[in-house]
Amino acid sequence: MLDIFGDVSLIRAALDFEAALARAQAVEGLVAADEAALIAETCSSVPIDLAVLAEEAAHAGTLAIPLVRRLRAAVGAGNEAAAGKVHLGATSQDVADTALMLQAKLAGGLIVNDLVRLTTALAALAEAHAETPITGRTLLQDAMPISFGLKAAGWLLAVDSALARFEREQESALMLQLGGAAGTLAGMGGRAIAVAERMAAALGLGCPLMPWHTRRDGIAGLAGALAIVAGALGKIARDVSLLAQNAVAEAFEPRVADRGGSSAMTHKRNPTGCQIALSAAIRAPGLAATILAALPQEHERGLGGWQAEGPVLVELFVLAHGAVRAMLPVVENLEIDAARMRANLEQAGIGTDFGEAAALVRSALAQRHGE
Amino acid sequence: MLDIFGDVSLIRAALDFEAALARAQAVEGLVAADEAALIAETCSSVPIDLAVLAEEAAHAGTLAIPLVRRLRAAVGAGNEAAAGKVHLGATSQDVADTALMLQAKLAGGLIVNDLVRLTTALAALAEAHAETPITGRTLLQDAMPISFGLKAAGWLLAVDSALARFEREQESALMLQLGGAAGTLAGMGGRAIAVAERMAAALGLGCPLMPWHTRRDGIAGLAGALAIVAGALGKIARDVSLLAQNAVAEAFEPRVADRGGSSAMTHKRNPTGCQIALSAAIRAPGLAATILAALPQEHERGLGGWQAEGPVLVELFVLAHGAVRAMLPVVENLEIDAARMRANLEQAGIGTDFGEAAALVRSALAQRHGE
Amino acid sequence: MLDIFGDVSLIRAALDFEAALARAQAVEGLVAADEAALIAETCSSVPIDLAVLAEEAAHAGTLAIPLVRRLRAAVGAGNEAAAGKVHLGATSQDVADTALMLQAKLAGGLIVNDLVRLTTALAALAEAHAETPITGRTLLQDAMPISFGLKAAGWLLAVDSALARFEREQESALMLQLGGAAGTLAGMGGRAIAVAERMAAALGLGCPLMPWHTRRDGIAGLAGALAIVAGALGKIARDVSLLAQNAVAEAFEPRVADRGGSSAMTHKRNPTGCQIALSAAIRAPGLAATILAALPQEHERGLGGWQAEGPVLVELFVLAHGAVRAMLPVVENLEIDAARMRANLEQAGIGTDFGEAAALVRSALAQRHGE
Amino acid sequence: MLDIFGDVSLIRAALDFEAALARAQAVEGLVAADEAALIAETCSSVPIDLAVLAEEAAHAGTLAIPLVRRLRAAVGAGNEAAAGKVHLGATSQDVADTALMLQAKLAGGLIVNDLVRLTTALAALAEAHAETPITGRTLLQDAMPISFGLKAAGWLLAVDSALARFEREQESALMLQLGGAAGTLAGMGGRAIAVAERMAAALGLGCPLMPWHTRRDGIAGLAGALAIVAGALGKIARDVSLLAQNAVAEAFEPRVADRGGSSAMTHKRNPTGCQIALSAAIRAPGLAATILAALPQEHERGLGGWQAEGPVLVELFVLAHGAVRAMLPVVENLEIDAARMRANLEQAGIGTDFGEAAALVRSALAQRHGE
Repeated sequence: MLDIFGDVSLIRAALDFEAALARAQAVEGLVAADEAALIAETCSSVPIDLAVLAEEAAHAGTLAIPLVRRLRAAVGAGNEAAAGKVHLGATSQDVADTALMLQAKLAGGLIVNDLVRLTTALAALAEAHAETPITGRTLLQDAMPISFGLKAAGWLLAVDSALARFEREQESALMLQLGGAAGTLAGMGGRAIAVAERMAAALGLGCPLMPWHTRRDGIAGLAGALAIVAGALGKIARDVSLLAQNAVAEAFEPRVADRGGSSAMTHKRNPTGCQIALSAAIRAPGLAATILAALPQEHERGLGGWQAEGPVLVELFVLAHGAVRAMLPVVENLEIDAARMRANLEQAGIGTDFGEAAALVRSALAQRHGE
Repeated sequence: MLDIFGDVSLIRAALDFEAALARAQAVEGLVAADEAALIAETCSSVPIDLAVLAEEAAHAGTLAIPLVRRLRAAVGAGNEAAAGKVHLGATSQDVADTALMLQAKLAGGLIVNDLVRLTTALAALAEAHAETPITGRTLLQDAMPISFGLKAAGWLLAVDSALARFEREQESALMLQLGGAAGTLAGMGGRAIAVAERMAAALGLGCPLMPWHTRRDGIAGLAGALAIVAGALGKIARDVSLLAQNAVAEAFEPRVADRGGSSAMTHKRNPTGCQIALSAAIRAPGLAATILAALPQEHERGLGGWQAEGPVLVELFVLAHGAVRAMLPVVENLEIDAARMRANLEQAGIGTDFGEAAALVRSALAQRHGE
Repeated sequence: MLDIFGDVSLIRAALDFEAALARAQAVEGLVAADEAALIAETCSSVPIDLAVLAEEAAHAGTLAIPLVRRLRAAVGAGNEAAAGKVHLGATSQDVADTALMLQAKLAGGLIVNDLVRLTTALAALAEAHAETPITGRTLLQDAMPISFGLKAAGWLLAVDSALARFEREQESALMLQLGGAAGTLAGMGGRAIAVAERMAAALGLGCPLMPWHTRRDGIAGLAGALAIVAGALGKIARDVSLLAQNAVAEAFEPRVADRGGSSAMTHKRNPTGCQIALSAAIRAPGLAATILAALPQEHERGLGGWQAEGPVLVELFVLAHGAVRAMLPVVENLEIDAARMRANLEQAGIGTDFGEAAALVRSALAQRHGE
Repeated sequence: MLDIFGDVSLIRAALDFEAALARAQAVEGLVAADEAALIAETCSSVPIDLAVLAEEAAHAGTLAIPLVRRLRAAVGAGNEAAAGKVHLGATSQDVADTALMLQAKLAGGLIVNDLVRLTTALAALAEAHAETPITGRTLLQDAMPISFGLKAAGWLLAVDSALARFEREQESALMLQLGGAAGTLAGMGGRAIAVAERMAAALGLGCPLMPWHTRRDGIAGLAGALAIVAGALGKIARDVSLLAQNAVAEAFEPRVADRGGSSAMTHKRNPTGCQIALSAAIRAPGLAATILAALPQEHERGLGGWQAEGPVLVELFVLAHGAVRAMLPVVENLEIDAARMRANLEQAGIGTDFGEAAALVRSALAQRHGE
């Protein structure tokens, strides 16, 4: 995940944008075929000194300017005319937004894969324990018997729903950005819409109805969906960590060598996976709020609001993915003490009738499959 | 909107829940038909002293307990056995969550109606000004010519998208809550799932795969969608208020009698509609973050997290609706000074070629219709 | 608290502003003594139809305009010239900001009183249980023995610190606002600074170095301090609710008649006080963030940002005070089961040596007194 | 700033903690003098493979465990008994919290220096332009004349206040953490309080009344203060960027070579410094809210809440400092067009009487010096 959002990947994505732009413009007759081929090839081969480029980008306030300068120089060494065709009709934000979406697509793929795997583990847990009695607790007080499978099915349905929302929002958000200086697609001789469609297809992104330079609801939807993913995982972590309290002792994170130890107490077994997920669930809302707060961006390119989005969205991806990675082994190898669950339930003195818990679990699992 | 979320409506919704519960249980044979009829009728007629009930609810920490007590007393006056069938198998959270969803459905309907009306006005604006030149401004600096219709089309597509997301999230979230004390639907003799389906249909809500006592992603999705609505409106307000600056003077909120005046400067014409929308856009993100932060709720009913959601969600509905109501007249009657737009553009010295702006607007409008 | 921030109190505070303004201007020779007396007297006696005024204020976008109109009419009925002296040199924001600060002063007084009372109860708890052994728990796992007094002393020091910060921020924030239309104090013939000093003294507020129309750090500091108060109380609530879990059973909220019950489970004893404090601690951060987000206000009066502050700050006061009121009886009457604490500690198998816990508690309590 | 919070500095601070602990324990007779000397010397010389250590720390969930293991091995190579004295009585959180406070102290020093320099520049601006007329603008509409010095004095007082609050919060927060496994200072034979006092003095931190493992108001106060710094700078950036709009053209960021350019429009001069400050002001509130949300931490060490704080606080320091660094040259070299200010004011038709603006500025500047 850190690789996907690292400097090398970002520059890779920016160069992919420039290559795709040149190729699409060649098909539409705006750039000669050999010029486009040279540009695209140079995008693959141009050597980049990461540290120097990063410094220039920080100074310039945008990556595109120093990157395009390098690219033009490298292309121009072979064909001076072609150098003038680099980045034709595009603007810095086109590169930055498209690169971010290319990275988001890769990162989202990892998250989806891991969430799917998590739902498999949760469904197995729900099924296996549909009839395992455990104390239901409301407001942190013993309330009525439930089954552990019902609890796991609740976790599952929340992850199902968070996953579905995330996929929906990815589909809305993962759009090519191509608008030029002020979003008018000027300077492409009336072929710009066709160029955009070709580029989007080549890059595996959607083609928006119009450039989205200050229409940031897609990014905001993605941010909210990632925060809900973190929250759904935080809910599992909350419950597991409460069940793992020594006085309750009903379920535990699996032991992992060299993890969850204490520098002062060697007897301890800390719920480290839950800690990561809960920490992510605490951090995600403020980040999502930041992206929501940035929505009212000024005119054709926001000042401050737009620039705030990128690093915050990246952080949300990293936190959400970190939480899934942390909770996967917790759920897949959760240690369950059914005898203790039953003993605590008897201790609670609230009977053992868990109502329709098992039926609810089975019906929910069946309906998931049916969909 | 304030009526929908007022005390009277809340109690009305809670009583609708109890009536629907009794009726559905009668069909499923859990309650005698005449008992259910008496309960339902009493739900319509029971007199409620709002102030006293509100105080008791605040003290008890829940509305359901004092309300059900009143209902049982009123039913018991006619039929003592029927009193025991009131609220059968349900818990306070069932009433509270379902009532909130009934209110959210009504409130959402108002928001959707007003947003649809707004999109009509925005589409008209985009079409009428597809070729009206105006300065495109990026990072608050004059950049390149665009058309005013392109700007309006950008506002439109953001509202379209915010509206579509809100409707999607309403569909996911507007679910009956019926789980009983710990979400197991105990005490309904195996007929609970059928009861839930009947109740949901009667109340016009969805029937979830399982009770969602601590699965709050639906609420969180709704909160995020409302914040995005506020942000999309805030974006329009940001632009209009910048265009209305005296030194720019390209577009203005319509004059409204006794609005936008100043207690010290009678010559002023303040952008009061924009002010309301921008204020909502500033307040919504923190509220959405609160609901996201509340996601990891403990076990079968959260302590603090659940209780935080209700008032915050209501506030989001009220703010989002207030913003739509404020921006509707602004957009519908926006005063546009096309001559000044053109004059400012000439002043900017960046030519008048707005590229494919007009084509983009027309293509976007056509594709909206096609969908 | 709701009274302090109710419509009646707000109008009262606004009229106090106008009366103090007229009186101070009389001393400085800007208004005749009899005119000022009439204005001040009318401020006390002018009848206000709350519902009508509220509607007009909502429409106008400011309370001051319709209120000053009423006041001028009432004054003018007795002395037409005096009517022209009402609100002389002031602007709507002067009235709104000063009224909010007057309300904040009253509300802060209540919070301080209750927090002081809470620290007394916490100090007694810390002292009484300095040597009562209990399991220390880190990352929700049994760790090492501590004393319950150490835990209570930790709660106490956090409340001490939150209280000290809140008082500091009150002192910085509770300032008169008087600047006139654009903060220049125009129209007071060079006597404006003297007028402001007199008004501030009369109203019991500080006199700022300059008007603070868009310098909102005082409000932001207050918001942060209130959120920290809520967090310090939330920490106590978190611990008490965890200790009150049935499997732990070491401490409990006192029983309160008709509170903490369940509509479905009569055996339950819910931690309702903790619930209120935790709910406040979840809601406060988003509200504080809103006020922080509003800081970069435009020029001499912000559009949207300024208007967002008032209701949000009020909500923070109400939540923080609600949390103190909820936790006071919890702490003052906390039921402690020292035998169970000891039994759980033995069960944990981590010995009973709580190190320097008792000494730490005593030293902390002594140093608090010394300061 | 990135150096201060880099991995090398973090490890340096952690080793400083261990060295100071051993030395203080030697004075108090808990560790032999030669053992302490060996430990302290090894802290200076032990070679650390950053990449490997970072991986182990991520896996273990804490830096202290793998670091202390390395330190013990290195010390043990010279003196096996001394190895057992490394980290004596301390726990991971002691190291982590103290290291963070050492870093915060350095970072805070940089911020204070730059803010002081900024206030010098702002005061000069206020003084020089105390009588330079400019349009006062409220709600983004021309309102009444003010002087540019009044605007600058407003910026100045907000920075003054933000700086004072930050220094106050630094003083409260920059405390040694030393509590041992559960905050009882066990295992130091009754000398722990004396050890803590010696360590605090040696490290240049305050010594708290008690360990603050779950008493996080100091961190929260710091977070809020940093967000207010960002907001005060964001306010300046908001105003400068509005003044720099082409249609207003009253003040401009200084030109910096290779900064603020556009990849598509070479004529543009973007307000890049303002952009950085506004972006920071948008991001800071969500981060401050996160730290506030983490306050109610469980028992003697929070699960998730504590772990969320560190990276978020670091981000706040980096953003706040980045904003000061960005705005320093903007303010120090602000290009002011007084003729245009006057021309726009005449255009506004609101006269040129700026009331007591100049007197207010001079009185405020004088009172700042007097304090």
